[in-house]
Amino acid sequence: MAEREAEVVPSIITDSVFSKSSPMPEDSREVSGYEFTRGQVDYHALLQSYRTSGFQATNFGLAVEQINEMLECRGRPVSETDSKPYMREPADRPVSNCTIFLGYTSNLISSGVRDTIRFLVKNNMVDVIVTTAGGIEEDFIKCLAPTFLGDFSLSGKDLKLKGINRIGNLLVPNDNYCKFEEWLMPILDTMLEEQKNSGYIWSPSKMIARLGKEINNPDSVYYWAYKNNIPVYSPALTDGSIGDMIYMHSYRNPGLIVDIAQDIRGINSQAVRAAHTGMIILGGGVIKHHICNANLMRNGADYSVFVNTAQEFDGSDSGARPDEAVSWGKIKITAKPVKVYGENTLIFPLLVAETFARNYKTPPDFEQATSQQ
Amino acid sequence: MAEREAEVVPSIITDSVFSKSSPMPEDSREVSGYEFTRGQVDYHALLQSYRTSGFQATNFGLAVEQINEMLECRGRPVSETDSKPYMREPADRPVSNCTIFLGYTSNLISSGVRDTIRFLVKNNMVDVIVTTAGGIEEDFIKCLAPTFLGDFSLSGKDLKLKGINRIGNLLVPNDNYCKFEEWLMPILDTMLEEQKNSGYIWSPSKMIARLGKEINNPDSVYYWAYKNNIPVYSPALTDGSIGDMIYMHSYRNPGLIVDIAQDIRGINSQAVRAAHTGMIILGGGVIKHHICNANLMRNGADYSVFVNTAQEFDGSDSGARPDEAVSWGKIKITAKPVKVYGENTLIFPLLVAETFARNYKTPPDFEQATSQQ
Amino acid sequence: MAEREAEVVPSIITDSVFSKSSPMPEDSREVSGYEFTRGQVDYHALLQSYRTSGFQATNFGLAVEQINEMLECRGRPVSETDSKPYMREPADRPVSNCTIFLGYTSNLISSGVRDTIRFLVKNNMVDVIVTTAGGIEEDFIKCLAPTFLGDFSLSGKDLKLKGINRIGNLLVPNDNYCKFEEWLMPILDTMLEEQKNSGYIWSPSKMIARLGKEINNPDSVYYWAYKNNIPVYSPALTDGSIGDMIYMHSYRNPGLIVDIAQDIRGINSQAVRAAHTGMIILGGGVIKHHICNANLMRNGADYSVFVNTAQEFDGSDSGARPDEAVSWGKIKITAKPVKVYGENTLIFPLLVAETFARNYKTPPDFEQATSQQ
Amino acid sequence: MAEREAEVVPSIITDSVFSKSSPMPEDSREVSGYEFTRGQVDYHALLQSYRTSGFQATNFGLAVEQINEMLECRGRPVSETDSKPYMREPADRPVSNCTIFLGYTSNLISSGVRDTIRFLVKNNMVDVIVTTAGGIEEDFIKCLAPTFLGDFSLSGKDLKLKGINRIGNLLVPNDNYCKFEEWLMPILDTMLEEQKNSGYIWSPSKMIARLGKEINNPDSVYYWAYKNNIPVYSPALTDGSIGDMIYMHSYRNPGLIVDIAQDIRGINSQAVRAAHTGMIILGGGVIKHHICNANLMRNGADYSVFVNTAQEFDGSDSGARPDEAVSWGKIKITAKPVKVYGENTLIFPLLVAETFARNYKTPPDFEQATSQQ
Repeated sequence: MAEREAEVVPSIITDSVFSKSSPMPEDSREVSGYEFTRGQVDYHALLQSYRTSGFQATNFGLAVEQINEMLECRGRPVSETDSKPYMREPADRPVSNCTIFLGYTSNLISSGVRDTIRFLVKNNMVDVIVTTAGGIEEDFIKCLAPTFLGDFSLSGKDLKLKGINRIGNLLVPNDNYCKFEEWLMPILDTMLEEQKNSGYIWSPSKMIARLGKEINNPDSVYYWAYKNNIPVYSPALTDGSIGDMIYMHSYRNPGLIVDIAQDIRGINSQAVRAAHTGMIILGGGVIKHHICNANLMRNGADYSVFVNTAQEFDGSDSGARPDEAVSWGKIKITAKPVKVYGENTLIFPLLVAETFARNYKTPPDFEQATSQQ
Repeated sequence: MAEREAEVVPSIITDSVFSKSSPMPEDSREVSGYEFTRGQVDYHALLQSYRTSGFQATNFGLAVEQINEMLECRGRPVSETDSKPYMREPADRPVSNCTIFLGYTSNLISSGVRDTIRFLVKNNMVDVIVTTAGGIEEDFIKCLAPTFLGDFSLSGKDLKLKGINRIGNLLVPNDNYCKFEEWLMPILDTMLEEQKNSGYIWSPSKMIARLGKEINNPDSVYYWAYKNNIPVYSPALTDGSIGDMIYMHSYRNPGLIVDIAQDIRGINSQAVRAAHTGMIILGGGVIKHHICNANLMRNGADYSVFVNTAQEFDGSDSGARPDEAVSWGKIKITAKPVKVYGENTLIFPLLVAETFARNYKTPPDFEQATSQQ
Repeated sequence: MAEREAEVVPSIITDSVFSKSSPMPEDSREVSGYEFTRGQVDYHALLQSYRTSGFQATNFGLAVEQINEMLECRGRPVSETDSKPYMREPADRPVSNCTIFLGYTSNLISSGVRDTIRFLVKNNMVDVIVTTAGGIEEDFIKCLAPTFLGDFSLSGKDLKLKGINRIGNLLVPNDNYCKFEEWLMPILDTMLEEQKNSGYIWSPSKMIARLGKEINNPDSVYYWAYKNNIPVYSPALTDGSIGDMIYMHSYRNPGLIVDIAQDIRGINSQAVRAAHTGMIILGGGVIKHHICNANLMRNGADYSVFVNTAQEFDGSDSGARPDEAVSWGKIKITAKPVKVYGENTLIFPLLVAETFARNYKTPPDFEQATSQQ
Repeated sequence: MAEREAEVVPSIITDSVFSKSSPMPEDSREVSGYEFTRGQVDYHALLQSYRTSGFQATNFGLAVEQINEMLECRGRPVSETDSKPYMREPADRPVSNCTIFLGYTSNLISSGVRDTIRFLVKNNMVDVIVTTAGGIEEDFIKCLAPTFLGDFSLSGKDLKLKGINRIGNLLVPNDNYCKFEEWLMPILDTMLEEQKNSGYIWSPSKMIARLGKEINNPDSVYYWAYKNNIPVYSPALTDGSIGDMIYMHSYRNPGLIVDIAQDIRGINSQAVRAAHTGMIILGGGVIKHHICNANLMRNGADYSVFVNTAQEFDGSDSGARPDEAVSWGKIKITAKPVKVYGENTLIFPLLVAETFARNYKTPPDFEQATSQQ
């Protein structure tokens, strides 16, 4: 094989490859990660290092900052400018300086994230909740019987023949839904009676509060929402087991009305009267759109964190980047919203650990309180 | 460098690499694709070749087969066994042998897929529709003013300052929503009056039918749904511009009730009374869950096609494989459901071209009909 | 329940919701889809309607335009300015005015897309190919024995016990690889002999050309690449069954050298000497990076189409938007690159149907040619 | 509006909804999450709670178990049965009872995860590395000049005009590559001289070891790989900046050979001679396939953890579930491989914190060691 002779590198190549750089802005931050060689792992330092690690670790770091700003804002008094006394409702919950809207999909209540959500609700750390029908009923059902670990690849047919329902890698025996029916049906009877007697018109949020009261169980997210007067919106509340029960109830004892018109007034008013708002939205679909749409009524949220696995390429609201919400006026043009691309069982507990939980003081009567539970 | 000497290949390697195969089952199909060298492209043959091409092309081919089976079933008379005369409602639409549930998210009505959906509805090719609030209002708004092409990367701030809203790579001027308000508000007034006068309780599906009648425009999907008595369910109907209007209406003229309880009876009854059912679900979230949940009432759908971009790993219902729905009894254990992983503007028109459209005969008065439109 | 009284809508709400729009630019295009009611489906018109349909249908339409611009450029004569006679190699293939780089991952050769790729290579419609090891060997193996349709959910253990390998929903009996070994080993012996006798140093591209010659089968993509002097680069050629064979060959008959240094000169020179370049890249990983990196040597490609399912959020090159490649100088800053988010068995045959295939004239001796095959 | 009368619920409904469950297996685990109300966050307990939390948190928990099993196996002595003295090469590294293959894509070296990887390599915690060209060169370049934080949405054109390259939300000034060239070119000259003088044939792994020696900087991953005799395979080593330099070097000083044939012998032999193997693969593409393929030579790995964002639906090896690798014999049929669906900057440092780092003892001379660095 003939050897090649040395030549000059054509200038088109060197010009292309070795173009010179402008200097980086002075405040540019260098990429760096956590240094494990320092010894025993300091998890808080590790998670703080995420801010400079790049990709979604950096977005996680930004989300921590965004939520901590939310909490700082919430801790400040409401200024006179921000006060809107003409927005009266709902009267039973004091207005903080930052109304935090928390949204999540049903699967998170099925998962262990429910316990993280309950921590936030029990301790009055959020102000408005939006979830789907499953996000409501699975909480109550867990008070009646447990959900189990399973596997994504279990056969649907085998499970059906055993009466076991699959949610990802979780399993819910169908008997749990039978127990739910036994618990719910008499409540529906009473609710209908109240409607007939007093002309009271139920809405999803009113019904959820009532169920939170009835379950009377500190394991329940909505028990604490009821206790703390945190409204819970779920416009499609009939889309799940609660709907199945309302359906069957419509045979046995017809006439119950579940009005969504009054709830849209409820959630929107909460956005409008708020001094500032923060949105923490876990997942997509109606819960994401509903919180953002309420914040459109006030020309945009001040603080926003989205955590989900959806992508923008299909034009869905679920996958839309926060910047799409800016165009609509759902997020303020001056805000610095953050989206973390990831799955919430992995991300949300860590996000809470680095934000809400750092402000949390164990109540002095904790031992007693937990022993009661 | 010293040369290596020849050696025997250790048997662990050859045993691992060259394990013998059992024969393939006799009915195994070989992978093959379309042969472009045959000359002018035969698109129908090309799309038929997808069945043996592998990956999502094969799933597309299976979806074509599944929908064509649905249509074949729908074309057969209802057998006596399958007849359920005790399930009376809704009385105004004849029962076919296969009730087809079509679900889609809002973004598809914003996109050109709206025209494909209208084709199905206008020609009475589907029986029940489920969509989100945006899936309703964007159809009416398009009758008032157009949606435009944009770009995924346009700046949210710039758009907001121009009053232009972004949906993926589409743009909707905010003026369109102002026009929608002008059209909708007087209708809400009339609806409330009717409620007060007659005790008529509105539901999302009743309201959508009324709006379909009022728009009186053959460009509208819901005009045709109204004309053809195809019920349209949208339990979270307040989650969008319609909700904004109901909210503002609640100040100006309070009292409108939108009841979701009666609609859950409506959609579930349609599943229960059906001789057979087919589900075609484009996208995820409430529309997917709602159709599947209705089919749980009848112990499962017979035919199912899901087309979406969601994945199962996050435990969401959106991303769940059809086999998860089998465990719940939402799809029959004997069915052969298909999920195509992909984006619907690319996939759904082609799916319709290979199924519904092949049965379609241009009406003799087509020229006249289109000139009127 | 006390009735609410009518009130004025607070101005903060109306100001937020009804902000006025600037007029859309005059050349804005309205969203619209295909009109099936016109009668028999006109697939070409349907696919042309994708351009105005939004989301990925629009990106498909843009990709069709981008490839058609590539082809138009390729059809024009090379101008004197663009001619680079000092870039001599590789001497055996004439320079067109637009050098088209086609890249694809292994799975596409396993699928029916192989037949689409062969159409392009056989008809000299592309100039440079980059693929992975599997993208080479699966083509040859298909000449020896077929690949079959399977299912994504078949049990790995069951298949292993039967000696059947799974690729997504495709199946390849392990015997196919045994046949491949029988075919390849004697060729490796000859190649090594030539190396020893003449000092000829093999590279992946030289080896692929030799195998294309040896297979001597018009079903093979690389047979046609060899015939048409289209270089095929695969820097990690040892990463697959070919590597397994080279490994075993290194025991039996050691000493074969496969040099990747000369191939980097080969591919880069092709980019540098080109008058213009177009990139069509199906999938991610090394094939995407390798083609883009070669185009960095010339300060960027003129035309670019990426089709893949990867997303940018993880910072991978696979998921990077074309705009990231612009920052590196891999795509010209004046270019209009397109990424279609989707799966290639669905998209690529349609893309070819709307571009390359429209220029294709069936050769007069087609019947004879195919009967020989 | 006429009131509905009470009716019996049709049995088809109740039979469908209230099917009875078989009892769950006795060892079924209940879903539960972390209890924040206990006070100060115990991060280790929080991450242990992931195992029972469902979805990807559970997969994270399984991955922790899988890696800890790997490490336990590695800590045991090699049994006589597992010893394969006939597999001699590579002679310079002692065989542990579990050979751990670590693979990662280039973007992780660009990110802060590089520091986590260096921890593993410096402390001899892994045995074989596979990465891409960028995974090599970005490590050396970081020793010459820093990588900076940026943003996914920065304009490619603006960056190009400033000579700044984007990698997701990271930025690398082009000057860094100029510095790399200055460092690398003389080394290439020396390498070529050695080749010419002694007939030494370079391979990617030999070249990487040499560069690790030359960089002589404890910040470098490959400095430590060189020090610890951990082989690093990168078959497509020319696919990046190193390739650019080899390309330009081929003009100035032609003749360097980079042979991939000897490296396939290297990596495969390491799999074959191993007593047991574990695979930790971060990302997809060639690095995933290459490690799995090497393990095919030994009829499968014993322990496997994949962490990536790819999905199986497109038939790519990147997105394939571990069960696909089982069908090929790349993972043992008795193994319990784990895939975590997620992004590695978020997941990998936490995975290391819960596994490798828990076994790590800070060396007594740590202060001194770090002050030297």
